[in-house]
Amino acid sequence: MKAGIVGASGYTGGDLIRLLLIHPEVELTYITSRRYQGKYVKHLHPNLRGITDLRFDELSPEKASECDIIFMAVPHKASMNIVPDLLAVGLKVVDLSADFRLKDPDIYERYYCPHTHPELFEKAVYGLPELYRDELKKAEIAAAPGCMAASAILGLAPIIAEKFIDRDHIIIDAKIGSSGGGKNFSFASHHPERANVVRPYGAVGHRHLAEINQELSLIVKQPIKVGLSTHAVSMVRGILSTIHVFLTEPIENKDIWKPFRKMYNKEPFIRFVKQPSGNYRLPDPKAVIGSNFCDIGFMLDEDIPRLVILSALDNLIKGAAGSAVQCMNIMLGIEETTGLLIPAPHPM
Amino acid sequence: MKAGIVGASGYTGGDLIRLLLIHPEVELTYITSRRYQGKYVKHLHPNLRGITDLRFDELSPEKASECDIIFMAVPHKASMNIVPDLLAVGLKVVDLSADFRLKDPDIYERYYCPHTHPELFEKAVYGLPELYRDELKKAEIAAAPGCMAASAILGLAPIIAEKFIDRDHIIIDAKIGSSGGGKNFSFASHHPERANVVRPYGAVGHRHLAEINQELSLIVKQPIKVGLSTHAVSMVRGILSTIHVFLTEPIENKDIWKPFRKMYNKEPFIRFVKQPSGNYRLPDPKAVIGSNFCDIGFMLDEDIPRLVILSALDNLIKGAAGSAVQCMNIMLGIEETTGLLIPAPHPM
Amino acid sequence: MKAGIVGASGYTGGDLIRLLLIHPEVELTYITSRRYQGKYVKHLHPNLRGITDLRFDELSPEKASECDIIFMAVPHKASMNIVPDLLAVGLKVVDLSADFRLKDPDIYERYYCPHTHPELFEKAVYGLPELYRDELKKAEIAAAPGCMAASAILGLAPIIAEKFIDRDHIIIDAKIGSSGGGKNFSFASHHPERANVVRPYGAVGHRHLAEINQELSLIVKQPIKVGLSTHAVSMVRGILSTIHVFLTEPIENKDIWKPFRKMYNKEPFIRFVKQPSGNYRLPDPKAVIGSNFCDIGFMLDEDIPRLVILSALDNLIKGAAGSAVQCMNIMLGIEETTGLLIPAPHPM
Amino acid sequence: MKAGIVGASGYTGGDLIRLLLIHPEVELTYITSRRYQGKYVKHLHPNLRGITDLRFDELSPEKASECDIIFMAVPHKASMNIVPDLLAVGLKVVDLSADFRLKDPDIYERYYCPHTHPELFEKAVYGLPELYRDELKKAEIAAAPGCMAASAILGLAPIIAEKFIDRDHIIIDAKIGSSGGGKNFSFASHHPERANVVRPYGAVGHRHLAEINQELSLIVKQPIKVGLSTHAVSMVRGILSTIHVFLTEPIENKDIWKPFRKMYNKEPFIRFVKQPSGNYRLPDPKAVIGSNFCDIGFMLDEDIPRLVILSALDNLIKGAAGSAVQCMNIMLGIEETTGLLIPAPHPM
Repeated sequence: MKAGIVGASGYTGGDLIRLLLIHPEVELTYITSRRYQGKYVKHLHPNLRGITDLRFDELSPEKASECDIIFMAVPHKASMNIVPDLLAVGLKVVDLSADFRLKDPDIYERYYCPHTHPELFEKAVYGLPELYRDELKKAEIAAAPGCMAASAILGLAPIIAEKFIDRDHIIIDAKIGSSGGGKNFSFASHHPERANVVRPYGAVGHRHLAEINQELSLIVKQPIKVGLSTHAVSMVRGILSTIHVFLTEPIENKDIWKPFRKMYNKEPFIRFVKQPSGNYRLPDPKAVIGSNFCDIGFMLDEDIPRLVILSALDNLIKGAAGSAVQCMNIMLGIEETTGLLIPAPHPM
Repeated sequence: MKAGIVGASGYTGGDLIRLLLIHPEVELTYITSRRYQGKYVKHLHPNLRGITDLRFDELSPEKASECDIIFMAVPHKASMNIVPDLLAVGLKVVDLSADFRLKDPDIYERYYCPHTHPELFEKAVYGLPELYRDELKKAEIAAAPGCMAASAILGLAPIIAEKFIDRDHIIIDAKIGSSGGGKNFSFASHHPERANVVRPYGAVGHRHLAEINQELSLIVKQPIKVGLSTHAVSMVRGILSTIHVFLTEPIENKDIWKPFRKMYNKEPFIRFVKQPSGNYRLPDPKAVIGSNFCDIGFMLDEDIPRLVILSALDNLIKGAAGSAVQCMNIMLGIEETTGLLIPAPHPM
Repeated sequence: MKAGIVGASGYTGGDLIRLLLIHPEVELTYITSRRYQGKYVKHLHPNLRGITDLRFDELSPEKASECDIIFMAVPHKASMNIVPDLLAVGLKVVDLSADFRLKDPDIYERYYCPHTHPELFEKAVYGLPELYRDELKKAEIAAAPGCMAASAILGLAPIIAEKFIDRDHIIIDAKIGSSGGGKNFSFASHHPERANVVRPYGAVGHRHLAEINQELSLIVKQPIKVGLSTHAVSMVRGILSTIHVFLTEPIENKDIWKPFRKMYNKEPFIRFVKQPSGNYRLPDPKAVIGSNFCDIGFMLDEDIPRLVILSALDNLIKGAAGSAVQCMNIMLGIEETTGLLIPAPHPM
Repeated sequence: MKAGIVGASGYTGGDLIRLLLIHPEVELTYITSRRYQGKYVKHLHPNLRGITDLRFDELSPEKASECDIIFMAVPHKASMNIVPDLLAVGLKVVDLSADFRLKDPDIYERYYCPHTHPELFEKAVYGLPELYRDELKKAEIAAAPGCMAASAILGLAPIIAEKFIDRDHIIIDAKIGSSGGGKNFSFASHHPERANVVRPYGAVGHRHLAEINQELSLIVKQPIKVGLSTHAVSMVRGILSTIHVFLTEPIENKDIWKPFRKMYNKEPFIRFVKQPSGNYRLPDPKAVIGSNFCDIGFMLDEDIPRLVILSALDNLIKGAAGSAVQCMNIMLGIEETTGLLIPAPHPM
């Protein structure tokens, strides 16, 4: 089968190209970039020198239609105006922008901008296979999750419906590397400014909040509002979400293990991490960087009824390109882990 | 006046030496190190080459007694057994270990070990001038705060007694650089392991919790228990405490400004940071590294009744050696800011 | 075919495991670790959690003999005493230590220690396929090169015999990440000490000099002695060798291109990098991290007759485990690039 | 006495402000910025919050004339057109741009652009007090050296005239942090791109070469041309110049010590670093960051007649603002070390 990528010049696009080049059952035949049309991949993605001779092409639904599936790696707003043309020529789409993640156009507008194609929302499935595997099989659009949202939702989904969870006092304190900001540079991303920071750039109001609240609310069938604060830290890749959950009653470790095991026991890309010792006894982005894994672990606070869930992933892989390829595998009827169980070098 | 340092070979000791060498009214005349006795300072602290010819001496209360004040920069447990001998020769002591920070020997024992000299607790004042300036003037022992505790307490003290604060749901999510672990190396601090991490090393149960709960409880005259989770991040110096506070009622920015201004308006080392734009519109350790400042700012969450307080300081300065020197100034009747308003180089 | 690794608990061992796990034609069946015998791989290599259930076994030539080839990932000196037993049971060996890289036992002794099995030197081939592809096909021992040596030799080999090269004034100024020191921690590798350094730890006398001089001398059939200075820089992986070569006569770019193209044109893991613009217009370890590529480029100095060759590789891959697997492929008659053309994530 | 800074919004300007604010004998009364006129210093330099209430003013020779001395911290080309107006109102000038460092307008033009005021060259003294202390006492213009040039020249000056130095084969391999590029951001300085690099951005042809060749040639009274290659490494501050010098005859350590001691024995900001052991046994930028020191050390190569000189400094201090203030002290008849012997925090 054949895949294409619209907007493949950025960091997420680069990781999509990489993952598709090593995918044994899908061929990457078409990549576009408005700005770099005609240029070789290697000029934009130095890691792919010597690996591929692909060139960036123009965006054309006709050319795209020779593929079986298209990944959208353009910014939100740009995506919503291209996707309809791709669907029109019968393509399946995995959208990595925010444009098809939300169910409610008003909420989309509040966090982003007015949406020009809300009629497509019903064709879109939120692109977390751990939550929507069955729906993804038939989806026309998979909306790959926001990186921070993926990390938070995967950490909370198994236990949010438990009665011992105080749903009114949930805090997600996220730490993310600089690649999360994409390829657009600014004074904020200038190395002397960005190195060695713990910058609370989204202390409140981060856009991924919309997805997190939506997905958690869908699970419990009641509106949930979490508190999300995001911090830029001094690394290139990775997210750790520290999820602070107050408890309504005293519980034991097994009360947490049980629902997590139930939901994730057979998940190929979720790893439970809770060892008695070692540098990686709890999730740390460092152990997942370069891979499609999301590591999840927890600690119970003995002082106050509190549960601390740690959820770590690579923002560009499980938080973007990796989840997207996982969605593709499901949508195309390919074994879900195909091309994604490549272990990452360590340490990095 | 003359000052000495017991245990001056570590990172905190190094910063104490540095601060005392540039202090215009106090002379550093005596530094000890069991391990490096006889060696020059420059062999342990390369930044002090060309600045001082001091040598590490043996520990001797007699020699110490030629000073007016002694800083204890040895680990907890070691300190409690030396301090009595120093008090006995009439010295004032600023202790940077945990040994005299707590009021309750049982709590000390729970978090550390049995205490051999709890009778001295009444002579000790918690070394945060912002809270105990008057008491420090006459203190025999100033117990410099734990770095994480200093950051958390300074962030919460002004508002913890406000009626809109939900004292039962307070989360402190702290991020700290590698110097916080001191000079003792291990596989956990091995550079390939420690670089690029967000390691939740103290997801629950961090020792500084004891001080934080104690000091906040003293302010409100009721027991308070906060949730503290600490993370090692990829930098050498600095702490950011992100303090998540749920609110019992809707408030406005000015409701927070008011108590903060009231408490800190004249504090020389607390800076309010809340600008509309810029890389440093909220506190970030990067802006305080190398200085005795603690930057404090906040954001109100519009989605849920939540207040996010950010508190940033240099763990080795305002979180240790700087607060200690500030205490010394007060204890010796010297103008409090003396030697401490040196701006730090930026960016680092 | 089956492969085993003796001493698989370190960083190089970890990357060997990783590369062999993704190798489509070789199965990793046997890994040893004296210290971690019985433990699962995932306890030592967090990136391999969820990928393999292998456990560390004891070292036993019998058990090893069920493999077709054994990788030695133990330190020098340890290796030389194990290899004979492996050869005795008919195994082929890829040794990643320094023990079989040199031809002259006296030079080995000068840089390392007395060698107990110099009689095996004639069975060993220096493990750089770019130089010894044919010899490796029949080798019993492949001696994978030192990381710094690989980088330097690959940068110099194509032009060292050219008449315009002043062989008496060659400087190799190398910069390396912290993983180059392996897993053994010390105060030198303590993160607060090791971060943000440019530490000239091997200004003169680095051991890899022995290999570099040997291999360059073999090419020109005359003794060559280069000047090598190595620096620890603030990153985890990667080496850049900046090779400064004085010229005996004025030359043009094409005079350099020609011999490089001649030697490397068909090499699958050597990439020429010399673009007019861009962040990666010349080799930078950042573009090869995580891959088996060695990027080579150069600049001619217009001011003085000088050639600057840049050679970048990942010290743990092309500088160790990757070259070792490349050797294995050749020794076992497998297509040389098998399992090694996996592109690395970028940026890291 | 009073000082002013023209163009004080950048990194060098920030360090100048900082150094002048702590200077006990000079008052900083006037700072300009075209872009930030009217803004407070704290908006641009977060480290100076709470330290000063200075605002950026417009550039006006009249206003400047109330000072005794003006620092030019604007880019080259801008500086040359302002300096004449400042001299015209009787001011002394310390120029941190490249505009008055060179003696030959043709060479200036080759490396920079045509010079509009070469007639001022004779009033300018190269701002390295270690070389031009006497000349600086009466200078109207001190031309603070380029950071890379300062490091290289200080490393070579004492021995360049020795007969055992092969002046035709000198290589300076420099490694520099990201602050060396100033405050202007670009894709090259984007954190995901700039972190973890060893980027040979100036493999040949770096502009500081002009100063280095000039100053070394002046010492030996013969034209010298060195080979300079500069690398961006993963840190914010600091330069290490590794200076590779071939020798015309065998020498001993003392042959190097002697000329170095002779020239630098009384220099307050040059530290010899050559210890038998320890993380800082040779110069490393990490030990000088935040200070005005230049650490110099060396190793003799036993294999080939080669001398490796290591020279480390903070590019923004001894490589810019610190040397500039040192010049100012000399020009104003103030004790040279005034305000500059502040030790830096360590580790950073």
